[in-house]
Amino acid sequence: MSAALGGWASAGHVTAVRVTPIAFRDPPLLNAAGIHEPYALRSIIELETSTGLVGLGESYGDTEMLADLNATAPQLIGLDPFLLNDLQLRVERSVSNRAQRGLSLAPGTHGDKATLKVLSAFEVACYDLMGQALGHPVCDLLGGKVRDEVPYSAYLFFKYAEHLGSPYAADSWGEAVTPEQLVAQARRMIGEYGFESIKLKGGALDPDLEAAGVRALAAAFPGMPLRIDPNANWSLDLATRLGKELGSLLEYYEDPTPTLEGMAELHRRTGLPLATNMVVTTQEEFRRNVQLNGVQVLLSDHHYWGGLRATQQLAQMCRVFGLGLSMHSNSHLGISLMAMTHLAASVPNLTYACDTHYPWQEEEVIVGGKVTITGGAVRVPDRPGLGVTLDRGALERLHQQYLDCGIVRRDDAAQMRRYDPGFTGELPRYREEAKG
Amino acid sequence: MSAALGGWASAGHVTAVRVTPIAFRDPPLLNAAGIHEPYALRSIIELETSTGLVGLGESYGDTEMLADLNATAPQLIGLDPFLLNDLQLRVERSVSNRAQRGLSLAPGTHGDKATLKVLSAFEVACYDLMGQALGHPVCDLLGGKVRDEVPYSAYLFFKYAEHLGSPYAADSWGEAVTPEQLVAQARRMIGEYGFESIKLKGGALDPDLEAAGVRALAAAFPGMPLRIDPNANWSLDLATRLGKELGSLLEYYEDPTPTLEGMAELHRRTGLPLATNMVVTTQEEFRRNVQLNGVQVLLSDHHYWGGLRATQQLAQMCRVFGLGLSMHSNSHLGISLMAMTHLAASVPNLTYACDTHYPWQEEEVIVGGKVTITGGAVRVPDRPGLGVTLDRGALERLHQQYLDCGIVRRDDAAQMRRYDPGFTGELPRYREEAKG
Repeated sequence: MSAALGGWASAGHVTAVRVTPIAFRDPPLLNAAGIHEPYALRSIIELETSTGLVGLGESYGDTEMLADLNATAPQLIGLDPFLLNDLQLRVERSVSNRAQRGLSLAPGTHGDKATLKVLSAFEVACYDLMGQALGHPVCDLLGGKVRDEVPYSAYLFFKYAEHLGSPYAADSWGEAVTPEQLVAQARRMIGEYGFESIKLKGGALDPDLEAAGVRALAAAFPGMPLRIDPNANWSLDLATRLGKELGSLLEYYEDPTPTLEGMAELHRRTGLPLATNMVVTTQEEFRRNVQLNGVQVLLSDHHYWGGLRATQQLAQMCRVFGLGLSMHSNSHLGISLMAMTHLAASVPNLTYACDTHYPWQEEEVIVGGKVTITGGAVRVPDRPGLGVTLDRGALERLHQQYLDCGIVRRDDAAQMRRYDPGFTGELPRYREEAKG
Repeated sequence: MSAALGGWASAGHVTAVRVTPIAFRDPPLLNAAGIHEPYALRSIIELETSTGLVGLGESYGDTEMLADLNATAPQLIGLDPFLLNDLQLRVERSVSNRAQRGLSLAPGTHGDKATLKVLSAFEVACYDLMGQALGHPVCDLLGGKVRDEVPYSAYLFFKYAEHLGSPYAADSWGEAVTPEQLVAQARRMIGEYGFESIKLKGGALDPDLEAAGVRALAAAFPGMPLRIDPNANWSLDLATRLGKELGSLLEYYEDPTPTLEGMAELHRRTGLPLATNMVVTTQEEFRRNVQLNGVQVLLSDHHYWGGLRATQQLAQMCRVFGLGLSMHSNSHLGISLMAMTHLAASVPNLTYACDTHYPWQEEEVIVGGKVTITGGAVRVPDRPGLGVTLDRGALERLHQQYLDCGIVRRDDAAQMRRYDPGFTGELPRYREEAKG
């Protein structure tokens, strides 16, 4: 029987690699780095194989990332999508040849972030291919789902009503620069998607106003888990004061202040569980965090940790070292959302609902349009692979939008300087010394 | 195309689980615990599926392990072999129900060794099934081989010429209780198998005689990597003295003295790279070792770390925390050897040749008899799954041998008491205080 089946399940070998940059409309969301530009960039990856399958991936769309992806693409011709170690070697060779970015951690470890980003983009497409070839959803290739749906949190932003210069019609969410407007945003987002936890992007406005926003949310949604993420824009003493003031309301306190050492000191001062996607982004930083106990919750992100398999390994390390686990998000579309969902479904110790910017996006590149979020969660699809198909018309449209919009790398600070010429984006912007 | 292929690659679901205890002849090999009994025990695992496939595993054969395996077996009916997380949940439920052995490490971590042993035994069989269903060797399901053959080391033992009471004809290796006999053993083993590194099992005879054995091996095989493993049978001061005397000859110094704290102190005193399969055998011990820097080389073993996937994750942790990586072995047959080989082939940071007892075994349960070792290495097979098939005649014969031999759990100390009634097996047997 095994001989009869042997060979049938091949995904073939890669015969074509397409990397298509796209741009999609993004609201004027405020953050520590500045403000979102009118368009967010992504790259859409397609791996086509000799058996006629097409595997999909989605990643960053900045010009440097596109250059790395495009330089690697020809190296993948002939790849068997099952052979992820071969993929890794090809990516490492290609990226390090280009940029001499080699960074050595522990012996044998390749920590180069560019390599890991490129690896991830293509690895997801390989998983999509494997799943399609096998007739299994991607989560089955990660050990199978341990939950039928993956919880996400309501990701709130302070924001302006529309972009400077009105490049297109204003979004429907309106302005949010006061606690009242923030609560209204939360009510709508929770009403539409059913989220059962809230993340507030902070570090954008006066810290005490943001703290008032947290209090207003806690009052409006009693008992709902609540987090704030000032993106390292608060000085240590300021983060300490606000941590003490808000601590009892917070599920965790995400990246309030810069550096792993700063976070470790903040944890010593407040005892609050601290989370990060900023100070632990490499295996070397993970190792240092074990020594320093800077953060207690890790926001993983397969786009820069090296893919689905590497993020599963990271999750296992979080189990071993007693760290909580959630997921970080940038502006993204449905391919990334489904990759996150398959991954999160297969990780036993996902201890917090994942972040996603997805409700802020109106456009899509997948057939059927936007993925449904109900009860605050995305249902893990049973279809083979990632379970999504590329809408070629949408891809062309968003690629044309990329060509037209003139943005080639994300620069929230430059965009903010159009509002405030003195804006530097230097962290932490908000400082306060503890009173003697 | 994807729809056409979808579903073809199923391994079906598990319809029958067979756990067969076997016993095979084992030479009178000396170690810290005593002496090998005339027969070594193993369990042979078969998972049969609705598509007619049979997946193989091999693990420990002690009566407690058999009880755990047999209690879990019925819980696996209906399992999809792809769904390793489902397998893990079924095993955890079964084993912890039986024995209330629950042991909590970091939140969410299941460290229970019995669970991990049972999980591993069945997980390997699931990988064999997946590989057969897909027409891919198991290593492809682990990301693909990064080497075509896996290096093993010559595993030397002090030994007697034959077992007490001559239960069967003496093995052909003869006695080895002197440095000269040890060198002769090494010459034959290296001549027959081509090994390119040597491991000496120590802790059995007078430590200075064993040290003379190391010196004799170093002289006979200049430049060949050399290790000694006294299995924690030397006191800290004795291990310190011999470490200083032998250090320049050793590739690493394996478990000379008990406890992680003892190994950490030994490393501080000698600076030698220390290896273990004794003081880091759980994730909690891994975590403590990161704090203490007790050992610098980990001898992994998928049979107790929870399987192939868990051992890959362990390998990744070794990369991150800068530990060297090799593989530990007990007396085993070809199914275990092939599982080790597929795993080791897929681990980029396998920094040392693996241990194996395999040359000491004469009997086999797989078709074709003993796996070939050439140039000190096992070639990774390209056949689907593990690449080995059960020889049902041999299985029956070795099972009958199990029933006949009367051994139901390994007890090297009891066997040694037949030679030396005062033998306790308490560690460390060899003590010496440092001279002031």
